[in-house]
Amino acid sequence: MENKIAHVAIATENLEDAKSFFELISGNKASKVHEVSSQKVNTSFIKIGETNFELLEPIGDDTPITKFLSKAGGGIHHICIETSNFDELIKQIKSTGVRTLGEPSIGAMDKRVIFFHPKDTFNVLIELEEA
Amino acid sequence: MENKIAHVAIATENLEDAKSFFELISGNKASKVHEVSSQKVNTSFIKIGETNFELLEPIGDDTPITKFLSKAGGGIHHICIETSNFDELIKQIKSTGVRTLGEPSIGAMDKRVIFFHPKDTFNVLIELEEA
Repeated sequence: MENKIAHVAIATENLEDAKSFFELISGNKASKVHEVSSQKVNTSFIKIGETNFELLEPIGDDTPITKFLSKAGGGIHHICIETSNFDELIKQIKSTGVRTLGEPSIGAMDKRVIFFHPKDTFNVLIELEEA
Repeated sequence: MENKIAHVAIATENLEDAKSFFELISGNKASKVHEVSSQKVNTSFIKIGETNFELLEPIGDDTPITKFLSKAGGGIHHICIETSNFDELIKQIKSTGVRTLGEPSIGAMDKRVIFFHPKDTFNVLIELEEA
């Protein structure tokens, strides 16, 4: 199976505000807001073609996106790439000198995910997700 | 026809360096580098599923991405959304108070495109392209 972009994650202070704009530009309705308590964020997905916008809103002041929001005022936080070749692709990427942020863990979609160090990936924070 | 993400544009100081990483993560080869002289950038597209990475590298010191590169050191510059409902969707988006950056023009793919003001679109620079 070919790799694809599973989602483009957009961090915002106010998910409800962002929702109507991304619904309009995608032509689709947002999913129900889902709380990911381990990450202290609310999320909502909006389908666009084969991929999705993932809107992210912090819950509280100490979350993985708080620093990003205070520094950049929000915007695209990361992109998630889905692959059926998860372990092998991680190995290949690491062999080029790209660092991971920790080990694979179970993401919001109950699939294995890993993040790479954005300094090694051209300032693009990339999440890899097992298909 | 459903809207889709046509490309995710990534600005970098060195297109060749970025190419090998994004080829690896997408599983596809980059297109030949194409100079867009009106924008003073070199571009290369890498297919990923139904969408693409568009790598952007400045030609010279005074380009639309120079400021972005010096400020952010590169990264995701914009996303392009393709729609068959181009004029009507622009009208709908403008009616919500979102400003455009100029009028529709002809983009790199010889299709009509328009950009929206990122301050009005949650700090995500969005290009809309006619399908």
